[in-house]
Amino acid sequence: METFYDVAVIGGGIIGSSIAYYLAKEKVSTVVFDSGQIGSKTTSAAAGMLGAHSECDDLEVFYPFARRSQQSYSILEQELKELTGIDIRRTSGGIYKLAFNEKEKQDLGQLCGLKTVEWQDARYIKQMEPAITNEIVGAAYIEEDVHVLPQAVCRGFSQGAQMFGAAIHEYTQVNDIQKNGSTYLVKTQTGNFEVQHVIIASGVWSHSFFQSLGLENRIVPVKGECLSVWREGIRLQHTLFHEHCYIVPRNDGTLVIGATMVENDWSETPTIGGIGQMIAKAKTMLPAIKGMKAASFWAGLRPQTFDGKPYIGFHPEDDGILFATGHFRNGILLAPATGQMIRDLILQREVNENWVEAFKIDRKSHVLV
Amino acid sequence: METFYDVAVIGGGIIGSSIAYYLAKEKVSTVVFDSGQIGSKTTSAAAGMLGAHSECDDLEVFYPFARRSQQSYSILEQELKELTGIDIRRTSGGIYKLAFNEKEKQDLGQLCGLKTVEWQDARYIKQMEPAITNEIVGAAYIEEDVHVLPQAVCRGFSQGAQMFGAAIHEYTQVNDIQKNGSTYLVKTQTGNFEVQHVIIASGVWSHSFFQSLGLENRIVPVKGECLSVWREGIRLQHTLFHEHCYIVPRNDGTLVIGATMVENDWSETPTIGGIGQMIAKAKTMLPAIKGMKAASFWAGLRPQTFDGKPYIGFHPEDDGILFATGHFRNGILLAPATGQMIRDLILQREVNENWVEAFKIDRKSHVLV
Amino acid sequence: METFYDVAVIGGGIIGSSIAYYLAKEKVSTVVFDSGQIGSKTTSAAAGMLGAHSECDDLEVFYPFARRSQQSYSILEQELKELTGIDIRRTSGGIYKLAFNEKEKQDLGQLCGLKTVEWQDARYIKQMEPAITNEIVGAAYIEEDVHVLPQAVCRGFSQGAQMFGAAIHEYTQVNDIQKNGSTYLVKTQTGNFEVQHVIIASGVWSHSFFQSLGLENRIVPVKGECLSVWREGIRLQHTLFHEHCYIVPRNDGTLVIGATMVENDWSETPTIGGIGQMIAKAKTMLPAIKGMKAASFWAGLRPQTFDGKPYIGFHPEDDGILFATGHFRNGILLAPATGQMIRDLILQREVNENWVEAFKIDRKSHVLV
Amino acid sequence: METFYDVAVIGGGIIGSSIAYYLAKEKVSTVVFDSGQIGSKTTSAAAGMLGAHSECDDLEVFYPFARRSQQSYSILEQELKELTGIDIRRTSGGIYKLAFNEKEKQDLGQLCGLKTVEWQDARYIKQMEPAITNEIVGAAYIEEDVHVLPQAVCRGFSQGAQMFGAAIHEYTQVNDIQKNGSTYLVKTQTGNFEVQHVIIASGVWSHSFFQSLGLENRIVPVKGECLSVWREGIRLQHTLFHEHCYIVPRNDGTLVIGATMVENDWSETPTIGGIGQMIAKAKTMLPAIKGMKAASFWAGLRPQTFDGKPYIGFHPEDDGILFATGHFRNGILLAPATGQMIRDLILQREVNENWVEAFKIDRKSHVLV
Ligand SMILES: Cc1cc2nc3c(=O)[nH]c(=O)nc-3n(C[C@H](O)[C@H](O)[C@H](O)COP(=O)(O)OP(=O)(O)OC[C@H]3O[C@@H](n4cnc5c(N)ncnc54)[C@H](O)[C@@H]3O)c2cc1C
Ligand SMILES: Cc1cc2nc3c(=O)[nH]c(=O)nc-3n(C[C@H](O)[C@H](O)[C@H](O)COP(=O)(O)OP(=O)(O)OC[C@H]3O[C@@H](n4cnc5c(N)ncnc54)[C@H](O)[C@@H]3O)c2cc1C
Ligand SMILES: Cc1cc2nc3c(=O)[nH]c(=O)nc-3n(C[C@H](O)[C@H](O)[C@H](O)COP(=O)(O)OP(=O)(O)OC[C@H]3O[C@@H](n4cnc5c(N)ncnc54)[C@H](O)[C@@H]3O)c2cc1C
Ligand SMILES: Cc1cc2nc3c(=O)[nH]c(=O)nc-3n(C[C@H](O)[C@H](O)[C@H](O)COP(=O)(O)OP(=O)(O)OC[C@H]3O[C@@H](n4cnc5c(N)ncnc54)[C@H](O)[C@@H]3O)c2cc1C
Repeated sequence: METFYDVAVIGGGIIGSSIAYYLAKEKVSTVVFDSGQIGSKTTSAAAGMLGAHSECDDLEVFYPFARRSQQSYSILEQELKELTGIDIRRTSGGIYKLAFNEKEKQDLGQLCGLKTVEWQDARYIKQMEPAITNEIVGAAYIEEDVHVLPQAVCRGFSQGAQMFGAAIHEYTQVNDIQKNGSTYLVKTQTGNFEVQHVIIASGVWSHSFFQSLGLENRIVPVKGECLSVWREGIRLQHTLFHEHCYIVPRNDGTLVIGATMVENDWSETPTIGGIGQMIAKAKTMLPAIKGMKAASFWAGLRPQTFDGKPYIGFHPEDDGILFATGHFRNGILLAPATGQMIRDLILQREVNENWVEAFKIDRKSHVLV
Repeated sequence: METFYDVAVIGGGIIGSSIAYYLAKEKVSTVVFDSGQIGSKTTSAAAGMLGAHSECDDLEVFYPFARRSQQSYSILEQELKELTGIDIRRTSGGIYKLAFNEKEKQDLGQLCGLKTVEWQDARYIKQMEPAITNEIVGAAYIEEDVHVLPQAVCRGFSQGAQMFGAAIHEYTQVNDIQKNGSTYLVKTQTGNFEVQHVIIASGVWSHSFFQSLGLENRIVPVKGECLSVWREGIRLQHTLFHEHCYIVPRNDGTLVIGATMVENDWSETPTIGGIGQMIAKAKTMLPAIKGMKAASFWAGLRPQTFDGKPYIGFHPEDDGILFATGHFRNGILLAPATGQMIRDLILQREVNENWVEAFKIDRKSHVLV
Repeated sequence: METFYDVAVIGGGIIGSSIAYYLAKEKVSTVVFDSGQIGSKTTSAAAGMLGAHSECDDLEVFYPFARRSQQSYSILEQELKELTGIDIRRTSGGIYKLAFNEKEKQDLGQLCGLKTVEWQDARYIKQMEPAITNEIVGAAYIEEDVHVLPQAVCRGFSQGAQMFGAAIHEYTQVNDIQKNGSTYLVKTQTGNFEVQHVIIASGVWSHSFFQSLGLENRIVPVKGECLSVWREGIRLQHTLFHEHCYIVPRNDGTLVIGATMVENDWSETPTIGGIGQMIAKAKTMLPAIKGMKAASFWAGLRPQTFDGKPYIGFHPEDDGILFATGHFRNGILLAPATGQMIRDLILQREVNENWVEAFKIDRKSHVLV
Repeated sequence: METFYDVAVIGGGIIGSSIAYYLAKEKVSTVVFDSGQIGSKTTSAAAGMLGAHSECDDLEVFYPFARRSQQSYSILEQELKELTGIDIRRTSGGIYKLAFNEKEKQDLGQLCGLKTVEWQDARYIKQMEPAITNEIVGAAYIEEDVHVLPQAVCRGFSQGAQMFGAAIHEYTQVNDIQKNGSTYLVKTQTGNFEVQHVIIASGVWSHSFFQSLGLENRIVPVKGECLSVWREGIRLQHTLFHEHCYIVPRNDGTLVIGATMVENDWSETPTIGGIGQMIAKAKTMLPAIKGMKAASFWAGLRPQTFDGKPYIGFHPEDDGILFATGHFRNGILLAPATGQMIRDLILQREVNENWVEAFKIDRKSHVLV
């Protein structure tokens, strides 16, 4: 077994896999470690919305970064299909961010100022989506916030990385990282690996690496519970979104209903209380949903940071170690841009200064852009 | 392939399998046909309560028949384990039929008159089951209404019947039954079988045989939706029961929550509306349940008759044909007694006259005992 | 509930759903009945190859019919996505029909005569598919024999039909068809329906309708067992095919390995003997497969006729009744052309005479074209 | 959240859960941490045989320890059912260790010397188990090597421990253990816990704790792949065992077929090569098995030590830390005795000296008893 690499990526979720993909594509010798199966943790729980607008809470940093990432997906779709044979299931349709009253309509005002977002009133929407509730006054329509199948993207990145020469070690937990002169020893169950750079992309479990590497940063899990149903009779063409909840029409004939927000809960199975909540919420958006057949349920842990922005960048005191984690509600959306940014940092290419600042590891609360 | 038998049983649910078991045990040559896998329809959806008391709506007919059946289970448990190696998972504990107010307490009055039933007040119950809701005033406690694992019973009956010489044909739908002189031709996909007696035990699908055999009787499906959760932390020792809903503690560590009542719905998958209802109901009985982890969900079709009692007996004009169906909410409970009664009818042994009358095919509404 | 329709289709597999789609698109009032869930029987078991060439055993009838159907898929892909939001997962790549020796190479000679088929020798193939066995001498390469996801196609047809106004009744078994003057009564559990035309598209279960409608035709089940694995490391771009077995690379990252041929077995679950066989066979084509992770296994029943061709056409003595069944190994491939042909027969449009002759219900053995 | 305990157990597999059970029963304040769900790793993969004789390779140490553990199960069965409501599914029947030729018969000689083991010749065995292969010359029959359902035992221990007051933290990985004066800090994602004793019971993953605690001991995973089938028609009353492979009749109507031995493979999903091997092997013991229906497949990692014996005892230089791991093929069998031994070590009760020596952490190769 080879044990020398330029870069070790710890975590094979969508973030780690994207990083490996973009690095391997540039011929950087890369190894990925995952405790279990690639993409089987938070990534596999996600709905897959690319909510550059619908999740946007900040036009200066989040939006341009998210947009860039969102746009990368149109290239990736083709690229990964050709390279790996995997279809990432990008689906047109876009999102309706619903307003149930004037207050909510006003809250959508700023969003509707963007030229990629359009306010539509209830009457018009009912024509497009006859099954939607009568209770809305209208919605912000965002055509470009389409969605993908997160596990397919992750698998695509990972297999693509392999085709470009990366090594993927599943079922290989990293227990420790040790400085070893100018290199690092990555200690795993299956042996030690010597590398130039280590990238922590372990999702919510990155937490322990911050600690063991002498940092105070915290990643807090925010559990999200989902269920899916078989769409019947009606055709839903758009994702419906209201107060952090959504109904996403997948192109296999199911609707995904998500997701609760349970802070500090590390368990990865849904409670029936959570499922009950989601059902109640979904009925307010799409009353007919209550008659649809249940397909499955699941849960996942969003990696949350103190300011809701990811950590992407170098360890403040050790430039052989990088972090790429804390993507909270938007890791699917942000995966391509994160992979590209890490690649550029490693290859010392130019990186947008705003992003470096906003995502750096030792930013302080007041850095909140 | 052998094609002559004394008795053909159409349906390998718990009712048909029980019949085959008791017949084969008496050396009657028996063949069972099932459209699919043994026990995979309504039987597999049942909670498995043996509610001789908790489901009792009539002390003259239902109760003695149900009691006899319930008592058979204690023998069966041992018998089937020895014969087939299958454990039917009979579980002690009994049922609490809850009263949330004085009115409900009064309604339980008659039941509590039975010497096998005991009224217990809230305080006492809370000692036994600390996790139960504070909202109850008390409950009827029925120690003997224990439960079994329905699929295990059905599989036990079916393998037992095989060991006694019966033939079991899975994936073999019966399309037609034809009189053929003094015998019957049972027509299936895989060929015709000639038999002396035909027993219709096809659950909710028996309906079409009534029709094709010239009878007006109707079997109406009443869909029931269930879910199960992993019991954690708390120990629930008794089944909780209120207004047709219940929480059953299985001895594998799960709780079964059931079940909705949706008339005339033939679909065998739960809707999320139904699941939502069950979650809401379960919380009123056992508040802590909302934090438990979801395990699975399913649905099944109860075969309902006009008066809620099963049809067990001869075709009014054709004594080579018998029916054993329509067991509605109580087919698991009633399976042993039904199998024994059909055996006795075929072997011309004595059968309790009340039962013959109450369950006969051509009873009229006013027969309602 | 509406109970009058122009056309009743019995069976909601890919064949019945295709028929409903093409009829409803022409505004014919149509109702579909299925005993269970749409597409959950043989259709859901299929690999989904569109083997117009690889399955071709007759250039005069099968080939042109199959080609037409295959070509329809390129239009359908777009059409169904727009109409229903469902992606049928059509995958490029094509098939390698392998030859392990000179004899097998010769046997592929006629096939390679077609201009859509090309002989490639082992060396060239190894460049394209490095993981393929070294034991081959070459293969017939058929670029256009791509594949689709059968359940997705079926669901697409069915939802499309609904959007064009058809009614779909799941969990509704048809028990009998009765002539009723100039119309027909379709008798189901949930009531009777009166229609002008009845189309039997019940797959392997069509058998009983031939019988009850006075015909001798036989449909024999040929069970096929499959398994799937997670493709790892290697990239397989083409379906591999040898002696009725194949390895199909799905675009979700799995490989489907199929399928045994077990005549007259009606059971729909695979035996471990069958699974063992498939594993052994797959290793001869793709040695590395033995190290891949098992994903799932299943089985389905191919509806076989005496001459391997489907029955598509009118009941010989009753032109209100049509059959569309017996598609054996090729129902996915042939679904669009079958739906179109039934539509044309009903609307009295012109239909290719060869096809009418070859597929007619009362053809004799010597009709074997 | 409470954060002080007497004992922290790292790992909630059957070993850790047994330890917690026996400690909590003695009112020792105990906390268990598991990275995921209790019992969901190696424990859930085991067949559950209590092979005190069939797995015995050493009469002096292994046998008495294993026998004691085996005998504890008869008490535990009742105890856990009453305390927790969980049935551990202990099944009578015993094991046939098959000999296919005279050589193999001789190899069983020593085993047959034990008074709990009996040689039976082929003819006799065929009467008991008519479905067994004709190829055997006989078998060693071990009535007391019955089996249990491993996950049920583990769940029973864990819930029992909770009822005696232990705290169970699922989804809580322990990242580090630090000496803290006279106590230890157990560092987890969810915070630090301060304890008097730490017990490493992390199965195959214990490996990394040996390393981080300054020891050289190695735990090597030996992956085992299994599948299960639905037993049909035939009745198998005994476990069949030959060359590390076995067929175990569970009392739910399935047969478990196990298990391959793949050293140094950390992946927890079976390959199809492994499944193929198991099918081939099972057919040699029970030919009819090839016609049985596949139920499911899975894999798990046995924790192997250099001499095949577990590590149970104190850290050589730190008597606040104990290990209980490396149970290889026999963790289910040995769980009760291991739990009792750890309890006795902690409570400074007397412990069999042979066991202390044989299982101690710093034993050397030559200690091989
Ligand atoms: C219900 C839900 C819905 C969501 N919906 C969306 C959405 O619609 N759009 C969107 O953009 N985002 C969504 N998200 C958020 C998104 O899922 C996450 O931001 C993203 O998956 C994070 O990816 P990751 O690679 O950082 O984490 P993960 O997918 O969790 O990957 C981390 C990996 O690291 C591995 N690992 C951990 N520790 C170690 C170690 N010590 N050694 C080796 N490997 C290790 C783990 O096994 C894991 O595979 C959703 C999340 C949830 C829960
Ligand atoms: C949610 C739920 C909870 C329940 N809980 C309880 C409970 O706690 N206690 C209790 O006593 N009862 C309970 N019941 C009721 C109980 O499940 C039924 O009364 C019982 O299962 C009926 O058994 P059956 O054999 O008649 O029907 P089924 O189990 O449906 O068996 C009928 C069989 O006939 C076969 N069949 C149908 N047509 C044909 C044909 N033409 N040819 C061949 N085979 C055919 C079917 O494939 C099927 O396997 C519950 C039911 C539900 C839905
Ligand atoms: C392992 C395997 C691999 C295959 N691979 C391919 C492939 O790669 N390419 C290809 O072209 N073909 C393939 N096939 C063949 C293909 O699957 C079949 O030809 C096709 O699915 C037949 O479709 P159908 O609609 O006729 O049957 P089905 O899908 O079986 O549909 C018939 C429907 O009728 C319903 N039904 C039956 N009786 C009644 C009744 N009385 N009332 C109401 N409803 C009823 C059933 O519930 C069912 O849903 C494969 C088949 C198998 C088994
Ligand atoms: C196919 C197969 C068949 C077998 N059959 C038998 C049999 O018939 N009879 C028999 O006696 N034995 C059998 N065995 C062996 C038996 O399964 C094992 O010996 C036993 O399960 C080991 O139990 P454990 O508790 O040590 O390990 P596990 O069950 O693996 O439990 C260890 C636990 O530790 C947790 N963990 C790991 N690291 C950490 C951490 N850092 N922090 C917190 N938690 C952590 C894990 O999540 C896991 O739950 C079989 C094994 C296999 C694979």
